[in-house]
Amino acid sequence: MSLTRVHNLSISLDGFATGEPQSLETPFGHAGERLHEWMFDTRFWDASGSAGVDDAFAQRNGYGIGAEIMGANKFGPPGWQDDPDWKGWWGPNPPFHTPTFVLTHRPRPPIEMEGGTTFHFLDATPAEALEAAREAADGQDVRLGGGAAVVREFLAARLVDHMHLVQVPIVLGRGSRIWDGLEGLEDAYDIEAVSAPSGVTHLSFTRKVAS
Amino acid sequence: MSLTRVHNLSISLDGFATGEPQSLETPFGHAGERLHEWMFDTRFWDASGSAGVDDAFAQRNGYGIGAEIMGANKFGPPGWQDDPDWKGWWGPNPPFHTPTFVLTHRPRPPIEMEGGTTFHFLDATPAEALEAAREAADGQDVRLGGGAAVVREFLAARLVDHMHLVQVPIVLGRGSRIWDGLEGLEDAYDIEAVSAPSGVTHLSFTRKVAS
Repeated sequence: MSLTRVHNLSISLDGFATGEPQSLETPFGHAGERLHEWMFDTRFWDASGSAGVDDAFAQRNGYGIGAEIMGANKFGPPGWQDDPDWKGWWGPNPPFHTPTFVLTHRPRPPIEMEGGTTFHFLDATPAEALEAAREAADGQDVRLGGGAAVVREFLAARLVDHMHLVQVPIVLGRGSRIWDGLEGLEDAYDIEAVSAPSGVTHLSFTRKVAS
Repeated sequence: MSLTRVHNLSISLDGFATGEPQSLETPFGHAGERLHEWMFDTRFWDASGSAGVDDAFAQRNGYGIGAEIMGANKFGPPGWQDDPDWKGWWGPNPPFHTPTFVLTHRPRPPIEMEGGTTFHFLDATPAEALEAAREAADGQDVRLGGGAAVVREFLAARLVDHMHLVQVPIVLGRGSRIWDGLEGLEDAYDIEAVSAPSGVTHLSFTRKVAS
């Protein structure tokens, strides 16, 4: 069975997955790198990093994924749709290595990158995008890469099988909040929390199986 | 030194300390008792309860307190100011057993209850209320009892020395949110998180000492 998974989505105590304003120079706005510092200290990120609980969660991001879906706000800074040469933040060899579906109201032809990543641009509902990604994933799982707005939409449509959030002990005050519109999410998911020595708390959401 | 402390303030994943609407019949609105179930299973609440980490945090609520401050929304349902006979939710012997200062824009004469609790009604700023409570506490600490709006105000004024929040794995979607207006709170507090087997996560905020 092919699952839809969210991994390593970092949020502040007040639930913001990114700050503001987002731009080419400040992709995470006033949050800077503060939401992601926990990851820089893991072996997942750097071979000299730690192999503890943060690493255990982080590593799962890479296993068993056959396709990625991301929102327009993850692919580029505001206005990237006006730049015909924009090919994402990640250079010639992006870290996806699979078909990668970018949701945008202004689709363009696919872009084949090095290393197995091909960007496809879709103007589609979450369910339609998931159908396309699942077919491309060829039996493997689909990673939902963010940002917060896209994850919220997929959660609201109950299309996410497994979500891993990382709560970082800062209060951002503004940005894109993961929780909005998701009242009662606990009815659909088993939720587990575990705090790490680094100071972050890992939140795992596992979709309940209909009984 | 007399400290200002917040204990056992339960919040949802999205930061709401109570639901809505609040009324005589539903003091926590649509949240019901869900934010507080973790506490009912502790020895602090019931002698047959558990003595684990949830109890360790909960018990501190009672030690070394010489006065309490609470907001109008904690003292009674909306409109209690129109009822001259309203004496709080807690019956003739409230669980405070100290001078207890209720912040309201419509103060009334003090009410002496059984067991050492006297309700005083103040129309005052957080700093003024704290000065009155500290004097009444006679060298002991002052408990800031909530609700969320009052705690937010005291945090914004940096008048809280120690705060204990309990994050419960539910998404309420609406109500009174603890985090609003507190961007950068981590600059003033050391923050520690620990998840409990019950499923809640205890968040401790300890005011940083000026160096």
